[in-house]
Amino acid sequence: MDKQEEQFVKAYAPATVANVCCGFDVLGFALDAPGDEVWARKKETPGILISAVTGVEGLSADPTLNVIGVVAQKMLTDLNLEHGLELQLHKGMPVGSGLGSSAASSAAAAFAVNALLGNPFTTQELVVYAMEGERLASGSAHADNVAPSLLGGFVLVRGYDPLDVIPLGVPLDLYASVLYPQIELKTSLSRSILKQEIPLKKGIKQWGNLAGLMAGLLMKDYGLIRRSLHDEIFEPERSVLIPLFKQVKDAALKAGALGCGISGSGPSIFALSPSAEVAHDIKNAMEKVYAGSGIETKSYVSKVPEQGVRLVEQSIYQTV
Amino acid sequence: MDKQEEQFVKAYAPATVANVCCGFDVLGFALDAPGDEVWARKKETPGILISAVTGVEGLSADPTLNVIGVVAQKMLTDLNLEHGLELQLHKGMPVGSGLGSSAASSAAAAFAVNALLGNPFTTQELVVYAMEGERLASGSAHADNVAPSLLGGFVLVRGYDPLDVIPLGVPLDLYASVLYPQIELKTSLSRSILKQEIPLKKGIKQWGNLAGLMAGLLMKDYGLIRRSLHDEIFEPERSVLIPLFKQVKDAALKAGALGCGISGSGPSIFALSPSAEVAHDIKNAMEKVYAGSGIETKSYVSKVPEQGVRLVEQSIYQTV
Repeated sequence: MDKQEEQFVKAYAPATVANVCCGFDVLGFALDAPGDEVWARKKETPGILISAVTGVEGLSADPTLNVIGVVAQKMLTDLNLEHGLELQLHKGMPVGSGLGSSAASSAAAAFAVNALLGNPFTTQELVVYAMEGERLASGSAHADNVAPSLLGGFVLVRGYDPLDVIPLGVPLDLYASVLYPQIELKTSLSRSILKQEIPLKKGIKQWGNLAGLMAGLLMKDYGLIRRSLHDEIFEPERSVLIPLFKQVKDAALKAGALGCGISGSGPSIFALSPSAEVAHDIKNAMEKVYAGSGIETKSYVSKVPEQGVRLVEQSIYQTV
Repeated sequence: MDKQEEQFVKAYAPATVANVCCGFDVLGFALDAPGDEVWARKKETPGILISAVTGVEGLSADPTLNVIGVVAQKMLTDLNLEHGLELQLHKGMPVGSGLGSSAASSAAAAFAVNALLGNPFTTQELVVYAMEGERLASGSAHADNVAPSLLGGFVLVRGYDPLDVIPLGVPLDLYASVLYPQIELKTSLSRSILKQEIPLKKGIKQWGNLAGLMAGLLMKDYGLIRRSLHDEIFEPERSVLIPLFKQVKDAALKAGALGCGISGSGPSIFALSPSAEVAHDIKNAMEKVYAGSGIETKSYVSKVPEQGVRLVEQSIYQTV
């Protein structure tokens, strides 16, 4: 085998929390873990081959039906490359959890392929490619999970016309406690129960809080973040789909959370806090609510990290 | 006459722009001029006497019907003081212009009375007193004009329950060009034509832009400010009440404005820009649109100042 073909890269992209309370559809942040890994190498024949999908059951290895295939194919097409790619996906996080599972796979694929090809794109430019995975997974090419998974920290998606992604970084120490109650909750259901009209008064409260959250993050004011982390509109509509949501939220706030809400379109629940210790207390308090409920849970504590996606392995044998 | 009674102060409070495009009801900023002056001195007998109202026609000198009387009375009552106050108001700005005329008078009154009484309140605490003037003037004790008039720069009013006023300062050089077309436009009409329900999609665009504007201001990014200064919801509904609005806005943007919108509930139109020179070009371009229209205009150029209200004169004769 030609040594050129031995080149491979493996990228890791983390889970993300979108719809951060008042930041519905526009604000997301990265976790450090869990996350997905994508391994990639060139192959001489055209097209995408997904040679392995591990970590979860039931995901397709058909490159037109798996987000990593769709993302990689779009990159190959845009770069007008004739060779193909062999990809492997290792899922390190649950699917359908509201933690940006498809986004993590998409971001890892985009980053791995980009690295393999000599970085023709900046990480920011990879957002549009990773969004193709979201289009496949949910029917809508949204950016509020893939952007933080790629860019780390908090990311604002100001708008889509044209796409305007603003990394806010991590101006201050924030820790996330995340609890995933293992119920099935389709994004489409969670989306369909939202009313298509918002009362003006609630809208004003919501964007006042979002502006407060932005100011709190950028002015490094934990008190303001705490006062702003509310969702007047969507949480009341959606939380009915998540058993024990109210009790979990109360427990998180009582344990010291700055705020607590539904991650993405659920069912995961996240809380933010100013220290790792408090974040662990919150996780324990949240778990306690579900203990004995018959609902299995997974939970995570993570600093909101500066970095999102990254290479975790590569082996480059230069041909001479 | 006892020299103690000769003590007086005079405060100046500037005009303000509220409803800054996407920041409807939550974001306002101060101008340096125009503005109102309030002169105040103690009088031995209880109650408020407004001994002069100058600068405009038709404002009541009845202390229960003029915002400065209402603000001052509320302060006297809360401080449980037995003496009274003599006040004079000089309006340096038009009434009903959408530039926070009642707010400027209210802020100047609150600041003057506070100084006269030895500053029992911080300037931030004066916001709730000045809001009493707004309650009289418009029936609603809103803070988005009085807060920037008192605190200067940009001010976020995150919410009212409880009141949460966040001064953002002036992180970067911004200049405002303001044109007041002298038509009568009642706030009540301008308010009544707003729909009480917002389409979800427009809401998301609006708060994406507000979050972008906050990030632009705090991250000192003129480009982001420019991309964010839009109002998807209210401007289309309200601008029909302002003749030539569309043409003025086009002219302002063409002259280099970062953004342009309705000031408060109109009819004044404001534009923001990154330099005094551009701000003057914009003012000229806006004036040109109205030239020959039969509508009289007043226009102003002002840096968005760090300071809002201030003392402009005082005479303190200490008794010995």
